[in-house]
Amino acid sequence: METTVRNKQVILKHYTKGFPEESDLMIATALDTMELKVKPGSSAILVKNLFLSCDPYMGTFMREPDSGSSEVAVETLPLLDAFLPGKPIAGVGVSEVIDSDDPGFAKGDFVWGIVGWEEYSTVNSFGRFRIDVNIDVPLSYYTGILSVTGLTAYAGFFEICSPKKGETVFVSAAAGAVGHLVGQFAKLMGCYVVGSAGSKQKVDLLLDKFGFDDAFNYKEEPDLNAALKRCLPQGIDIYFENVGGKMLDSVLMNMNVHGRIAVCGMISQYHIESKEGIQNLPVVIYKRIKMQGFLALDFVDRFPKFLDYVVPYLNERKLVYIEDIVEGLENGPAALFRLFQGQNIGKQSIKRGKRINPKFNSSDAHFLWFCRAPSIRIAMGILSWFTGSPKPSQPETTKTEIIQTPAPGMNGAIEVPRPDRATVFEFGSVAATGDRVTLAGYCPVSDDLEPCRWEIVPADGKDAPQFRVVF
Amino acid sequence: METTVRNKQVILKHYTKGFPEESDLMIATALDTMELKVKPGSSAILVKNLFLSCDPYMGTFMREPDSGSSEVAVETLPLLDAFLPGKPIAGVGVSEVIDSDDPGFAKGDFVWGIVGWEEYSTVNSFGRFRIDVNIDVPLSYYTGILSVTGLTAYAGFFEICSPKKGETVFVSAAAGAVGHLVGQFAKLMGCYVVGSAGSKQKVDLLLDKFGFDDAFNYKEEPDLNAALKRCLPQGIDIYFENVGGKMLDSVLMNMNVHGRIAVCGMISQYHIESKEGIQNLPVVIYKRIKMQGFLALDFVDRFPKFLDYVVPYLNERKLVYIEDIVEGLENGPAALFRLFQGQNIGKQSIKRGKRINPKFNSSDAHFLWFCRAPSIRIAMGILSWFTGSPKPSQPETTKTEIIQTPAPGMNGAIEVPRPDRATVFEFGSVAATGDRVTLAGYCPVSDDLEPCRWEIVPADGKDAPQFRVVF
Repeated sequence: METTVRNKQVILKHYTKGFPEESDLMIATALDTMELKVKPGSSAILVKNLFLSCDPYMGTFMREPDSGSSEVAVETLPLLDAFLPGKPIAGVGVSEVIDSDDPGFAKGDFVWGIVGWEEYSTVNSFGRFRIDVNIDVPLSYYTGILSVTGLTAYAGFFEICSPKKGETVFVSAAAGAVGHLVGQFAKLMGCYVVGSAGSKQKVDLLLDKFGFDDAFNYKEEPDLNAALKRCLPQGIDIYFENVGGKMLDSVLMNMNVHGRIAVCGMISQYHIESKEGIQNLPVVIYKRIKMQGFLALDFVDRFPKFLDYVVPYLNERKLVYIEDIVEGLENGPAALFRLFQGQNIGKQSIKRGKRINPKFNSSDAHFLWFCRAPSIRIAMGILSWFTGSPKPSQPETTKTEIIQTPAPGMNGAIEVPRPDRATVFEFGSVAATGDRVTLAGYCPVSDDLEPCRWEIVPADGKDAPQFRVVF
Repeated sequence: METTVRNKQVILKHYTKGFPEESDLMIATALDTMELKVKPGSSAILVKNLFLSCDPYMGTFMREPDSGSSEVAVETLPLLDAFLPGKPIAGVGVSEVIDSDDPGFAKGDFVWGIVGWEEYSTVNSFGRFRIDVNIDVPLSYYTGILSVTGLTAYAGFFEICSPKKGETVFVSAAAGAVGHLVGQFAKLMGCYVVGSAGSKQKVDLLLDKFGFDDAFNYKEEPDLNAALKRCLPQGIDIYFENVGGKMLDSVLMNMNVHGRIAVCGMISQYHIESKEGIQNLPVVIYKRIKMQGFLALDFVDRFPKFLDYVVPYLNERKLVYIEDIVEGLENGPAALFRLFQGQNIGKQSIKRGKRINPKFNSSDAHFLWFCRAPSIRIAMGILSWFTGSPKPSQPETTKTEIIQTPAPGMNGAIEVPRPDRATVFEFGSVAATGDRVTLAGYCPVSDDLEPCRWEIVPADGKDAPQFRVVF
């Protein structure tokens, strides 16, 4: 392994004005080399960044903090602050510890927390969480469902909104990273759930894959108030706010008495010169509405409780988590701006390197629970996302590739040529319990591309087979 | 006593549009007579209304409910709904039970609750509270500090805002009925309290009488944001919102992280055609601000706890409660529109009849605690309000009248010619404990204008004397 590197970074060129553009960022490789060791006595941790999270708030951090834009963080957050021109931007990332002078972290640990958008970061332990690789999910989940994104959805819905079974829930940007989780949490709670999104494809996903009771494409609704009345004639008890602006004004008119609004984001307002004024706020009085802004970081103490809640649902395949992963740090700016423009579906992240959770056994469960037998698709490696049978309709960034359709009851080893790309096997039918397919892929534990073996075991009575790494 | 009456009422002539005018109401006397008895088996209660409360929300209830104005109550509240043209308007009132078929209420009881603006109302027990005349305050207090107004201030401040000692509190419409109580509750809690109001006179009152730490006249501030930064350089932890519009937008920019906004009213927005849009709402996210609309009726179960809190402060003279009382039902519309125009100071109410609490002993305490010795003013009867020495500066509606200045140590009876009007005695100095002035006034227990005797006893070591009815 190399001992020195020239660090590659995504740099903010200058403070942005108005809507940020991809050209406000640049990719830079350091002229000087960086030693892959931490200084003794520094308490520092050197990490290699494997996955980087793209989040809507990052756009507001590209603006000058004192520019008077109201949504810019005017307070220094404990972990995150406005970006500095000439420096790498930062966000939630999943990293591998390369060297550590902090006794709490050791080489080989996987961690998540705030890191720069760069190949290697020197960080400290503050706000750094060790990943339990025994939780049977891909490492990429710690940019999203099992870190800030998931905790945001959980805390906003449960802690801010105090939902009750049977209540009505409306989620804007519902096909987004947070939104699609909130909708599913609400369904699991027994609520009636409606979502809005910005394309037919996303609306179909809400209805077909995430189990929303109703959904609409806000871009095709001339009257948002009418759309809400149509989908939620009984009114809205809980609104999970991601967009702001006209949507909020329309929602206010449709809120029920004692309604709750968790204000997670207002992405429609982040990058416009003249904000859309909210005119219907006086209804909060007679309707006794609570509106509350929140950040996941205020709920870090609930993190263990959150994992206890969400991991079983993932394991039981009751939760669909959609990732929209772009490969390579150099594609990071493009991925971020896809997000700002609402082109992503599900959690937008960036992958670099080939690491996945070394003990990751059954990722297929999370990708596949909505794919019902007799036709089963199995994903391997890092999958952006894919839709189910009969015809896969794949978004442009999906890296899925059907390389073989094993026959029912097929048993044997299959060579996987590119396990760092998403790979899909289609089974006509997996009928017999005990059917088994063994795949050879790259070992996810090291970068050395050693082959490992993956064993696919259809579970008794379940739609999708289990998935196991065989070394 | 009469057994039949022609009921006099304040009638809504028609639904209002834009800013309501006094001419939208009219005084009407019924053509047919009303018997002052309830029907046996009706469970009804016949009451004579003694005091009627003027409240800002009443203006919004004069508009057509479906007119699309966002702040109009779109839900039927448990006790109160939009007014009907041709019918009397309604609000909180203090009444005397004349006849009752409800076993829970008896002739001679004093009650408060929602009544029509009329001389006599036939009501039921729902939302009707019996007044404990042993609580030593004037009956008029049950239109305000000891009913909805007080509970609004209490619930909004304590239940919605969860204040902590040392926090900063900003109150808009701070000289209003609710505002001046919130500010004092906050001071009693140990907060730093700033208020805004619409005249120099009101600002002086906030600073001199209610103990606010700072205050400003919003009409004379070209830049509200700058005014807030000047008065609250450390930012705002709690905002008690009574006005909405530009003030709210400016406050949002000055809120601290984890700030709380109790949305009690938005009077600036109630009667304008085009609402002022709130542009700075996105700050609620990073600042994790809670904004919550509320109505006192949701906190009725806290009423006993509220009385336990507030009555001792009244008795200990630690709370100044300001009333702005207009006499006569026929002057009700004018009083209500004074309120809508912000001309009132303190609680705007209407008095009809001569009843005060028959066991009312020491109202002076509440009026007078801010009047320091050696010059003491004592009010008797029903007092609008007055300011302290050296020169009383009286608002136009004040009915105070200085009729005599007793000498120090004076002892004897003084005839009070018009006890239903406010009457002020000025003492040059009340030096000796045990000094005593006995006044003869009208008996407050009946309408029969029988004289009673009032005894003024300077308390040992206290600034203001005690006040006692002697029958």
